[in-house]
Amino acid sequence: MKDQIIKLQSWVVSAASAVGKREHDGPIGNCFTLYDATGEDKFGKDTWEKAESEMQRLALKQALEDSSLEESDIGAMFAGDLLNQCVGSAYGLLEFDIPYFGLYGACSTAAEGIMLASVMTSYGIFDRCAAVTSSHYCSAERQYRTPIEYGGQRPPTAQWTVTGSGAFIIGGENVGDGQKGIKITEAMPGIVVEKGITDANNMGAAMAPATAHTLLRYFSEGRSVEEVDLIVTGDLGYEGGAILCDIMEAEGIDIRSRYNDCGMMIYSRNVQDTHAGGSGCGCSATVMASYLLPKVASGEIKRLIFLGTGAMMSPDSIKQGSAIPAVAHLVRFEHSGE
Amino acid sequence: MKDQIIKLQSWVVSAASAVGKREHDGPIGNCFTLYDATGEDKFGKDTWEKAESEMQRLALKQALEDSSLEESDIGAMFAGDLLNQCVGSAYGLLEFDIPYFGLYGACSTAAEGIMLASVMTSYGIFDRCAAVTSSHYCSAERQYRTPIEYGGQRPPTAQWTVTGSGAFIIGGENVGDGQKGIKITEAMPGIVVEKGITDANNMGAAMAPATAHTLLRYFSEGRSVEEVDLIVTGDLGYEGGAILCDIMEAEGIDIRSRYNDCGMMIYSRNVQDTHAGGSGCGCSATVMASYLLPKVASGEIKRLIFLGTGAMMSPDSIKQGSAIPAVAHLVRFEHSGE
Repeated sequence: MKDQIIKLQSWVVSAASAVGKREHDGPIGNCFTLYDATGEDKFGKDTWEKAESEMQRLALKQALEDSSLEESDIGAMFAGDLLNQCVGSAYGLLEFDIPYFGLYGACSTAAEGIMLASVMTSYGIFDRCAAVTSSHYCSAERQYRTPIEYGGQRPPTAQWTVTGSGAFIIGGENVGDGQKGIKITEAMPGIVVEKGITDANNMGAAMAPATAHTLLRYFSEGRSVEEVDLIVTGDLGYEGGAILCDIMEAEGIDIRSRYNDCGMMIYSRNVQDTHAGGSGCGCSATVMASYLLPKVASGEIKRLIFLGTGAMMSPDSIKQGSAIPAVAHLVRFEHSGE
Repeated sequence: MKDQIIKLQSWVVSAASAVGKREHDGPIGNCFTLYDATGEDKFGKDTWEKAESEMQRLALKQALEDSSLEESDIGAMFAGDLLNQCVGSAYGLLEFDIPYFGLYGACSTAAEGIMLASVMTSYGIFDRCAAVTSSHYCSAERQYRTPIEYGGQRPPTAQWTVTGSGAFIIGGENVGDGQKGIKITEAMPGIVVEKGITDANNMGAAMAPATAHTLLRYFSEGRSVEEVDLIVTGDLGYEGGAILCDIMEAEGIDIRSRYNDCGMMIYSRNVQDTHAGGSGCGCSATVMASYLLPKVASGEIKRLIFLGTGAMMSPDSIKQGSAIPAVAHLVRFEHSGE
């Protein structure tokens, strides 16, 4: 196949996130400035779904404020979430008078949106674009599993859906948006892979093969582990992360020394009882926006490969006996002193 | 706002569709070559959802065959559908070893996918891309309303979800893909608009204002009704189509003489009992792929403006009392004798 790696020349102009109580109480909680101080994760709304939408609105509003940009400076926004028909995004971003591209990439949506926003701005189609995504523990539990009031038991491989939204504003080189020092230089969209996993409580195992697939395609184009500081996946969690490292090792590439996962960073494994780690569109979106990209901006991380990982099943497809297809989209960020 | 119209230089290399019995029996049914001859609309599968996926697989396979291209010639595919978590696309396209961008634009997905595929190929990011979408009457009814066995009454404003899938292969100018004579020259992504419609049995009324919004933005950039042969909307149906014409007339632009709607073309209003006309992602995808684009290829239609129209609510958002947001994406096709 040709054209595997997309060459990009764009900048992260700003990034912001809004999170819930558990995320704010976690080990990197101090980096999230927007959260619901009531501790109820409702952000002043009367349903979990509306609360999720509100987080998207707050995150994009904050990203606009941080960049001193107006709505009219943003040519288009790319957004999606886990809710049926992606209503978290459709309602959350309704107040912004910005052309809207709806995405569905499950938990890979942050990477998919950043990639498309970067393509649009790198090639001069728009000066600036936004990418926004979200998830909410309570809206996801009742949609995918059972309402939280039911008190269902969680197996050790289950992950905890992050309550949070991340928003990114991406600008093209031509408009001088380099002030934050975070360049997007390459991307590679993932191919959907399905390896027979049917357990919806073990998404990490379903997503790990798709992640390895994208990473191996990327390395086959002359890239290597050694030239990057960090390879970070969206939400493979402890289970999927270990499987990814094993698959890569079997392929002759040891990524362990440079590998981490947003789902492993966001909660304290021992204290917060989140089993295999965080997941959901909001997991990688918030960790990238408020924890990792600032490290790229400061130069603490020079070259970062981000793999947004998504499990593309539905509750119905699982009930109909289908295995879980998954996808992993890759975006490369680099610190630039310019 | 800047950058309203996206300039494009790409070609429709091929387009194919697969449809159900009602669509094949309709007034333009002869143009659809792929359909389930058993009349059961299951395409050999045991659930409606799997049948919908199978239509996507068949449509893309046919489009590849028609173009004499291989999977490896396609740099990426853009796909989405109406099913929760877009499983119609994720499962239907699993056998294709092509990078996958998942979309959610409700019934605007065909236009959204064609637009993004055209951007990618016009700007040389990929040589060729595919856009695929689908809907199925039986999977949509039980997800959005009630299972068909329930026999629910339909109000006159209700539309009939098309059972069908359309697949498009879009190529860049640089790779010589001009043989079919259908150029994509411009596009404009829509802004999400919500005008207070809460009746999920009247999607046309919810989508008409968003459609007028995009069309007015387009005309404000120096374009006019007179210079095009046909303005076609995806699935406003009789109700929404009439509202669109009224809104446009109130804005001083009479589009009636050049306006039509895919949802009005696909069924016989008097004979087929489909009330306000067809709808669903598959409506505009199949009518464009197999009925309208061949007319552009032959030169019968020289300049066509296609507005993919999507209502972005979910059954849950309706139950929670929210009104229906909608979006309309515009793509311009032109006949080229080259």
